[in-house]
Amino acid sequence: MKVYLAGPDVFLPDAIEIGRAKVELCAAYGLTGLFPLDNQIDRDRADASLQIFRGNEAMMNAADGIIANLTPFRGPGADPGTVYELGYMAARGKLCLGYSNDPRFYAERVADMSELKSANGLLTDPDGLTVENFDLADNLMMIHALELHGSPLITPEMAPADLWHDLACFETCVRLAAGRFAPAAV
Amino acid sequence: MKVYLAGPDVFLPDAIEIGRAKVELCAAYGLTGLFPLDNQIDRDRADASLQIFRGNEAMMNAADGIIANLTPFRGPGADPGTVYELGYMAARGKLCLGYSNDPRFYAERVADMSELKSANGLLTDPDGLTVENFDLADNLMMIHALELHGSPLITPEMAPADLWHDLACFETCVRLAAGRFAPAAV
Repeated sequence: MKVYLAGPDVFLPDAIEIGRAKVELCAAYGLTGLFPLDNQIDRDRADASLQIFRGNEAMMNAADGIIANLTPFRGPGADPGTVYELGYMAARGKLCLGYSNDPRFYAERVADMSELKSANGLLTDPDGLTVENFDLADNLMMIHALELHGSPLITPEMAPADLWHDLACFETCVRLAAGRFAPAAV
Repeated sequence: MKVYLAGPDVFLPDAIEIGRAKVELCAAYGLTGLFPLDNQIDRDRADASLQIFRGNEAMMNAADGIIANLTPFRGPGADPGTVYELGYMAARGKLCLGYSNDPRFYAERVADMSELKSANGLLTDPDGLTVENFDLADNLMMIHALELHGSPLITPEMAPADLWHDLACFETCVRLAAGRFAPAAV
């Protein structure tokens, strides 16, 4: 069974190695990991970004499920590109699994970045925008999508020393996927 | 025809009024705008966030298209909750339209927030993560999804004075949706 490996991992300087490590972990559990092609496209082509999009979409269509790395990326929430893919796979009825290596609640992360105000039970950020405060790790759309289309978000008890290379929570997702797809291998 | 009105607008202090204004604009073009229920749920219920999720999912399933407000939210990119919904609607084959009131390229916004390094044609942020640099307004998954499932992202020539309340780009999307769904009304 094929699993699409979504995440901002593609933006890491060692993206190819991380992708290989993730694919190998999948193989150890009897699964085929599909890691996005971003790094294998000729970036000088005028349509490079469209080629990447088409490659990713084809991989998603071919996959039976997704494991999304929802570790916060350039802000308090998950990488929007990854989240697009999670929504896409949920709508297609594929198995949706995800992890974040940051165990804090969303509101805690926003509070750690800026001073929040609290009034009438509502938290607001310095721009006056409400901060979702449901004791969830990220926006409720992703959190409940995982619960309903796969399994609740996997997080560590404590953030690992290397937020972008620690694969313990990823491996938990792989094990969950294998349990659904290839029970004999777990 | 029904259009789901996605965006971090639900986090504005005057979310109800903005929702009403968007729905009225849709009506003026012969469309039924569906604005998410976040503000009409009893937030003291233990399952409030799940109720919001289910309400949003039901609205998306009922809608023929989506107009997503992809104006950058708490960081250089779009609100992940909104992007989840865009991915969901794209996968369901619904009409996908979106706008951002910030006309800058993604890489420009990241550069305005932190000092970037450039080497071998690759831009990297202070954490060493690559910055997508395709002269696109946001992550390529959303930008090309709009092109392929609806119409290219709508942006203003210059950012409006009020990033969260200016509805000019939103209205352009409504007009586009009306042109697809109810050509006689345009």
